[in-house]
Amino acid sequence: MRINKNYLNLQDSYLFSKISRKVAEYKEKHPEKDIISLGIGDVTLPLCDAVVRAMQVAVAEMGTKEGFKGYGPEQGYGFLRQAIARYYEKRNIYLDPAEIFVSDGAKSDLGNILDIFSVDNTVLIPDPVYPVYVDSNIMAGRKILYMDANAENNFLPTPDESIKADIIYICSPNNPTGAVYNREQLRAWVDYALSCNAIILFDAAYEAFIQDDKLPRSIYEIEGAKKCAIEFCSLSKTAGFTGVRCGYTVVPMELVYENTVLNKLWLRRQTTKFNGVPYIVQRGAEAVFSEEGHAQIQQNIAYYKENAKIISETLKGMNIWFVGGENSPYIWLKCPTGMTSWVYFDYLLENANIIGTPGSGFGKNGEEFFRLTSFGERKNIIEAMNRLSKI
Amino acid sequence: MRINKNYLNLQDSYLFSKISRKVAEYKEKHPEKDIISLGIGDVTLPLCDAVVRAMQVAVAEMGTKEGFKGYGPEQGYGFLRQAIARYYEKRNIYLDPAEIFVSDGAKSDLGNILDIFSVDNTVLIPDPVYPVYVDSNIMAGRKILYMDANAENNFLPTPDESIKADIIYICSPNNPTGAVYNREQLRAWVDYALSCNAIILFDAAYEAFIQDDKLPRSIYEIEGAKKCAIEFCSLSKTAGFTGVRCGYTVVPMELVYENTVLNKLWLRRQTTKFNGVPYIVQRGAEAVFSEEGHAQIQQNIAYYKENAKIISETLKGMNIWFVGGENSPYIWLKCPTGMTSWVYFDYLLENANIIGTPGSGFGKNGEEFFRLTSFGERKNIIEAMNRLSKI
Repeated sequence: MRINKNYLNLQDSYLFSKISRKVAEYKEKHPEKDIISLGIGDVTLPLCDAVVRAMQVAVAEMGTKEGFKGYGPEQGYGFLRQAIARYYEKRNIYLDPAEIFVSDGAKSDLGNILDIFSVDNTVLIPDPVYPVYVDSNIMAGRKILYMDANAENNFLPTPDESIKADIIYICSPNNPTGAVYNREQLRAWVDYALSCNAIILFDAAYEAFIQDDKLPRSIYEIEGAKKCAIEFCSLSKTAGFTGVRCGYTVVPMELVYENTVLNKLWLRRQTTKFNGVPYIVQRGAEAVFSEEGHAQIQQNIAYYKENAKIISETLKGMNIWFVGGENSPYIWLKCPTGMTSWVYFDYLLENANIIGTPGSGFGKNGEEFFRLTSFGERKNIIEAMNRLSKI
Repeated sequence: MRINKNYLNLQDSYLFSKISRKVAEYKEKHPEKDIISLGIGDVTLPLCDAVVRAMQVAVAEMGTKEGFKGYGPEQGYGFLRQAIARYYEKRNIYLDPAEIFVSDGAKSDLGNILDIFSVDNTVLIPDPVYPVYVDSNIMAGRKILYMDANAENNFLPTPDESIKADIIYICSPNNPTGAVYNREQLRAWVDYALSCNAIILFDAAYEAFIQDDKLPRSIYEIEGAKKCAIEFCSLSKTAGFTGVRCGYTVVPMELVYENTVLNKLWLRRQTTKFNGVPYIVQRGAEAVFSEEGHAQIQQNIAYYKENAKIISETLKGMNIWFVGGENSPYIWLKCPTGMTSWVYFDYLLENANIIGTPGSGFGKNGEEFFRLTSFGERKNIIEAMNRLSKI
């Protein structure tokens, strides 16, 4: 039996284990220090009340003969897909529920969608980037091209007509940079994809953090996108579902390549290799889209946004260049005095007892940059910013 | 952008939609008839009390600051992997929790495990078979060989030394036939796999239905299996988790191919393309392995087994040849008077108002066979068997 040798081309995933190790070593030397983490990409606020109640009801149902649910449709229950379709409708995007696939999170679907594409495609990925986009394609053996995101383009690369790509990754609002594409820029990407018959994999995991009404929250706000883009959404950061696991992937019926309707391929893939998201979780997700649930998650999102604002204001006051923080939970700053990212990591840990994520962990263009996240507790954010402004 | 053209080699998945259509047509013509389904592969008894309570506690925790859980380890929480390791220990199989991966069900892991194997492997699959084994390999473009399961070998094919295979699927107790391999037969398969450096994908989804102590419930009861087998387990039928979604996959550290430890590959695959099973579900699964939960699920399993016994006794009384039913929730019978399976389907539907699953839906060797399942309600099973014995 032969293994998939592409796996041997993966880099050892050292970023977060290296961070853990350095923090553990520091803690051992300085057990009295109060270390604040602004590096976590995980939420800290609990599930909102509407979601908890909906799941309690669903758990109870599962214990009764009449209410018990066995296998559900692999693409998700109609009640949830319809709720998601109505959510899109509010922004004048009209989807058939059959174009919506409930997922156990964007991470799974972003990895598994690659099953339906030939390995013979060239993938275009930004640098810096969330590493799984890269790794999942290395596993398949695809050719990867990188597009430079940097201070010159405000970490929002635009299409390069001289490059022909087949699969294009766009994450907006971006992880790790927090940068957000505007309508014109996404228009350019859609035009580019249509012109070279490419497909855009649009990661909208952070769309709920956008506060500027002019910025698009879905790729489908751009005309023509239904012909060239799959959108991946997640309730992880929107509703605190990082440990509950639910998202949704939109595969419009108009997505046709080589005379093949992609929606049919994805349905076949999912009905073959997936058995759906738990009923209990889907009822929790449905509550997120209810009026009450929506209002409650907005409060949590506002809390994280206020954290981001506090971080942003502090950096502005220190004249530190950054993107993000305004329509995103991530802030991507230029390390002061030309420090490289791991040097800045050590500097912050030792001088302010703050942990962040070194930009080089996300690619070569992150070498002089650093990611801070706004998911922590308010008091820690305030304390951390106090310390930061003093060093 | 080019699609994965292997998808065009998939057969249209018509089996259950054809059954639905025929049943809908019959119901339209005969709305007054009481149709009983013995075709469903889904459980009907609700979740047991211990599981419901554990999930209620977990849902409540998720609504509190102190108890909220965000991202968990992709391979599953230690508390659950340890509970699973203790379950194996009871049968003298010693696993490191790091060899256990919590899944959202065997279907997902059976499909996704293929990511870590080269497409350049020959796959050996039984006929008849659960179609997803075949489809997931067609999607990858692998060469597939079939081994004949038939009345002559009691639907338990043994290794053919003249065939060299790389990936071997064994499902025992079997879906669709209910046949169960004994120790000697599994010993032969392990020896075969070791001799040609193949890997066995052992689907143990129905192990909890085995009542004969002499029959193995895990491939690891066979010495040497840790060097050549991955085991896929599921709580779907064991604990009624078809709509809750939880299972576990065992990848022993001793599984090494081309100098590569498969456990590391699977961990990398899952940490890249999966974000774990919901915390709430893992607490529910933990309850399955508790003393109380175990006792409660045994009651449910006993209920289904009694159903299987009623069906078996009826068939014996009618001199209809069958396998399964004794250590499995499935019964695989030879259609009487030489009817082919779809003809028998129509015959049963019209003359007894019973639905089953035609064997040809599982492969050419199912042409003259038929699957009945024991997951239905007791009163329906009894009524169905009354009707069957009269025609």
